[in-house]
Order: sequence, then C-alpha cells, then structure tokens
Amino acid sequence: MGTQRTIGVDVGGTKIVVGLVERDGTIVRVERYATPVGSTEAFLAGLSSAVESLQDESVAAVGIGLPSAIDQRSGTVVFSANIPLAGLDVRSWAAEAFGLPAAIDNDANCAALAEWRAGAGRGTTDMVMITLGTGIGGGLILGGRLYRGWIGAGAEVGHIVVDADGPLCQGHCTGRGHLEGFASGRAVEAAARRVLGPGAGTPELVAAARQGSGPAREALAAAGRWLGAGIASLVNLLNPELVVIGGGFGEAFDLLIDPVREIVARDGLAPARDVVRIVPAELGAAAGVIGAALVGFEALDGAGVPAARG
Amino acid sequence: MGTQRTIGVDVGGTKIVVGLVERDGTIVRVERYATPVGSTEAFLAGLSSAVESLQDESVAAVGIGLPSAIDQRSGTVVFSANIPLAGLDVRSWAAEAFGLPAAIDNDANCAALAEWRAGAGRGTTDMVMITLGTGIGGGLILGGRLYRGWIGAGAEVGHIVVDADGPLCQGHCTGRGHLEGFASGRAVEAAARRVLGPGAGTPELVAAARQGSGPAREALAAAGRWLGAGIASLVNLLNPELVVIGGGFGEAFDLLIDPVREIVARDGLAPARDVVRIVPAELGAAAGVIGAALVGFEALDGAGVPAARG
Repeated sequence: MGTQRTIGVDVGGTKIVVGLVERDGTIVRVERYATPVGSTEAFLAGLSSAVESLQDESVAAVGIGLPSAIDQRSGTVVFSANIPLAGLDVRSWAAEAFGLPAAIDNDANCAALAEWRAGAGRGTTDMVMITLGTGIGGGLILGGRLYRGWIGAGAEVGHIVVDADGPLCQGHCTGRGHLEGFASGRAVEAAARRVLGPGAGTPELVAAARQGSGPAREALAAAGRWLGAGIASLVNLLNPELVVIGGGFGEAFDLLIDPVREIVARDGLAPARDVVRIVPAELGAAAGVIGAALVGFEALDGAGVPAARG
Repeated sequence: MGTQRTIGVDVGGTKIVVGLVERDGTIVRVERYATPVGSTEAFLAGLSSAVESLQDESVAAVGIGLPSAIDQRSGTVVFSANIPLAGLDVRSWAAEAFGLPAAIDNDANCAALAEWRAGAGRGTTDMVMITLGTGIGGGLILGGRLYRGWIGAGAEVGHIVVDADGPLCQGHCTGRGHLEGFASGRAVEAAARRVLGPGAGTPELVAAARQGSGPAREALAAAGRWLGAGIASLVNLLNPELVVIGGGFGEAFDLLIDPVREIVARDGLAPARDVVRIVPAELGAAAGVIGAALVGFEALDGAGVPAARG
C-alpha cells in the first residue's frame, strides 16, 4: 500500500478549492473551480467533478469544508448562507458519490485543524482559532482534539455576546451585540466609508492605516478593542495556550494586536491572561483546503469527526 | 481489598466540609468545621484535622476543592480571595500530609463534576455548569470529560464579557462588563436594596418576587436577561447538550429561566440554541464535597486532574 492521501474540498460562496493533501498537511496538488450556486443539483455536480479532477489511487478519503452550520449527528447542513444545501446529508452523499470514507465540517473548524496540525498552533494542546473574514468564525482545540460541540455546531466565536441588547447582528442572525457586528471585515466597512468615502472598503482602510492615517488607525483600534473583549471571554472561559488569528481581515493583525492585548490584560483573569499567546495564522487562505483534507484523515482513521463509509 | 472511598474537602471562606464518598458520589459520612483563616499554618492544621476525622482504611485518595484560581501544572494556588493560600502547592502538601494520592481543583469545577456524575447532568457528554452564588463560577464537561483549560484556570463563566467597557467587575477583577457584575447574587443585592430598602438582600428580593412583587420580579428578570446573554455566548461557542444552573442564588431558577430562555432564543444560533436544555442543579450545596471527592477518584485513577502521590 502506497502513501495515503486525502482530498480536501474548501467550498466558498464563489469558488471551490480542491487539494490532494498528505497526512502532515502538505498540499501535493490543488485546483480551483467556480461554485455553481444555481441549484443543489448543479452544486453537487460541480463538487463531484472538482473532486474527480484530483482522484487517483492514493486517495483514501474525502473531507469537505462548508460555509454552513452542520448537525454532525446526521451529516446534514442546517443553514447555508450562499449555497442551496440546507437539509442535505452531504456526508452520505459524498461517501456514495466518491466510494470513499467521507466527512464534512464547518470551514472555520477546518481552518483551526489546519493551523493546529500544520501552522501556527503546531505542538499545542489548547488553542483557539479566530477567523476574521467578512464574518467571524472560529475553531477550538481543547485537550488535544478539535472540539466541535455536542452536535457539531459549536465554535461560533463571531456570535459571543459582547454588548448585550446591542445592535442587531449581521445576516440571518437575530442576536444583538455579537462580536461579528464589531470586529469583522464587514463591520469595519462602515468605518472605511466614513473615513475614506462611500467607495472605500476594509482593504483600503487597512492600507490607509499602514500609510499612517490617524482616523483609519483609530477605526481599526476600535475593532481591535472589541476583538479584545471577545478574546478575554475566551481566555477566561477556556484558558487556551494560544489564540491564532486568521482570515482575510486577520491580515491586519499588526494593526489590531495592541488594542487586543490592552483589553485582554484588563478583562482577562490571572493566571490565564498571563500565559496566553496571541499570534497570527501562518497558512493564509490555504488553511481551508488543508483543514478539509485533515478532516478527511479523521474520517479515514475513524477518530474525531463522524464519517460515512463509501 | 474492600470498597475504595475518597475524602472530598469543600473549602469555603467560613467552613470546611469533609465527606467520605463512594465512587458513584454517595456520601457515607460528612463533617463540618470552621475555616481557620488567620494564617496559612492555622488553615492547613484545620484542614488536616478535618480530613483525619474521616480517615479509615477505605480511604484511597483525597480531593480538595478550593475557592481559588489554581495552576494545575504545579498544584499551586495563584489567587485566593479569603484564605491565605497564594503560592502554596496544596496538592503536594496534601499528598504528603495524608500519605495518599491527592488532587486539588477550583470549587466550581468540583460542583460541575458532581452534577455531571451524580446530579442533573448524568449521562450527558457536553454540559456547562453555572454556579450562581455571591459571584459566578462554572465548570465545563466537554466531550465526556471535565475541561479545565491549558493550566487549569478555565471555566470562569462569571468573567465572560457581556457589556464591553461596562462597569468595573467585582472583587479583585480589573475587567469591565463581566457577567458576574450583572447576574450574581451580589449584583442583585443593589436591586434588593432599591426595591425593599437598605437592609434587604438577595434572599428577601427572591422571596418578594415569589410573593408577587412586580418590582422584585422585574429586578430578577433583568438579571435573568443578562444571564441569558452569557448562556447564549456559551451555547454559540460550546454547543452543549445541557446547561445546569446551581449555587445559592441559582435557587431562584424559576424566576430567572423565562428571561434566560427569551435571550437564548434570540442570541443563540440554530441548531445549537434549539437543542440545548437548561435545568436546575440537583445536588444543592452538597455538590462541592461530592465533586471534591470525585476529583480524589481522578487522582486515584491517574486520569483527569494532575495528582500528587503520598
């Protein structure tokens, strides 16, 4: 038997990234395809051909990362913002479609698994990953394993309450004062428009801050203070060794970290606040496909995430 | 070899409760002593004689629950509000003093372990315990084990931030807007004085609410809404099957639960918010001594909490 690899599938709202990946997280080959979102059938057909483009005799399992809330008891998507998947048992579908062990997971959990096994969190046992993108996702490594919650719906770091009865949350969420409403890329867009004009977005705000704009730096510092309040809650609740900050907006780590540390020092309890390290992610956007492939290895090994057999 | 029991020690600011306890959490015998707080030496002498009052040939280990922040790497108390223990390796001291395997833990972790093994959480794998007392403590059962955090300083449920930059927290905490400042017994005392006069406390407020006082019911509902925001954060982050509410102020469960559920329904994400159950604790004040004894069984078994050998 030769080297076993898995195919990781990182499903986004606009593209599907598939990777042939080794057990240590090394990407052997990667392909990108547009995400068909017109219908469930079109999406699944696109997913099939994406995976098949990498399938060879080394492939022992498939792991799929979805931008969705998942019920791991049934392998079913409960909520999916951009792709018509709600109610679908994607896990069983994949096992049957590819004739291989298959598992699915939330994309933020995949990113956490990747950073833990192959990125900034290597060697730790207790790590929180925060993915700052348009929204905020998260993943929890607790006691040396990815903790998904009772039915796989945990680690929604963007939806911890930092301002009870505060502004209505984003998207489909009916909550108020959630972290995502203050410290996500989308939350910062309003500040970008205010500081730089109606056409500006988060990338321009970050660039302006790096160029020395005081108002831009202050807007990002405000987001960093909110993020610090959320991280303080995580530190007090979970006492992690490491907090890893990734995602597209997370690339502004250098502009966010001082206010984050200021609030963690104030709102964190000793000794947890004194031992935690807060670092940037290392794998960038590749974390999604690497982590999905590592979920595939969990399916292969029958450990960690629930799996279906092909 | 006969039945193995452990001695559990529940150390409080005013009394030390010691219990001879079976593996299933059954208390065989229990004694209460005043807590000597004049000096570390006096405290340890009192702790010794309390344990020795129950020691017999069935006793295989000792577990001690402390109202303290603990660093489990060293067995050392990091912070202790009422008892002069900071910097002391209580675990090694106990193993040597009693000639038995010994372990220590935070009192709220002990209560969680007790409710999980012998109380409201029996049979669950993913449970959050919230102890509403003068302050707010907590314990996390995640994936079928008590999760203490990287160095044992986690589960500080009272110190999750629900109102960033809000009022200064209680006691030694330098944080702002922590849950404990809004939903603990001490936080409700101000409302009790406002509603019932300067001599009133939380018990009178709860009694007045049960007798139908509108202002008293409203004050407790406000605390329940804050608690709901905290529980929503826990639900979104940890996706527990069960949330157990205990502690002295937790006996007002019936007056708090409707506003708690209202906010969890609003601020919680599907599917986690739809599957969680929120229930009252079953063991009352006995949870502390039972849980400490169960920590003793963990020391005996060499699993769970770090232990010292006598």
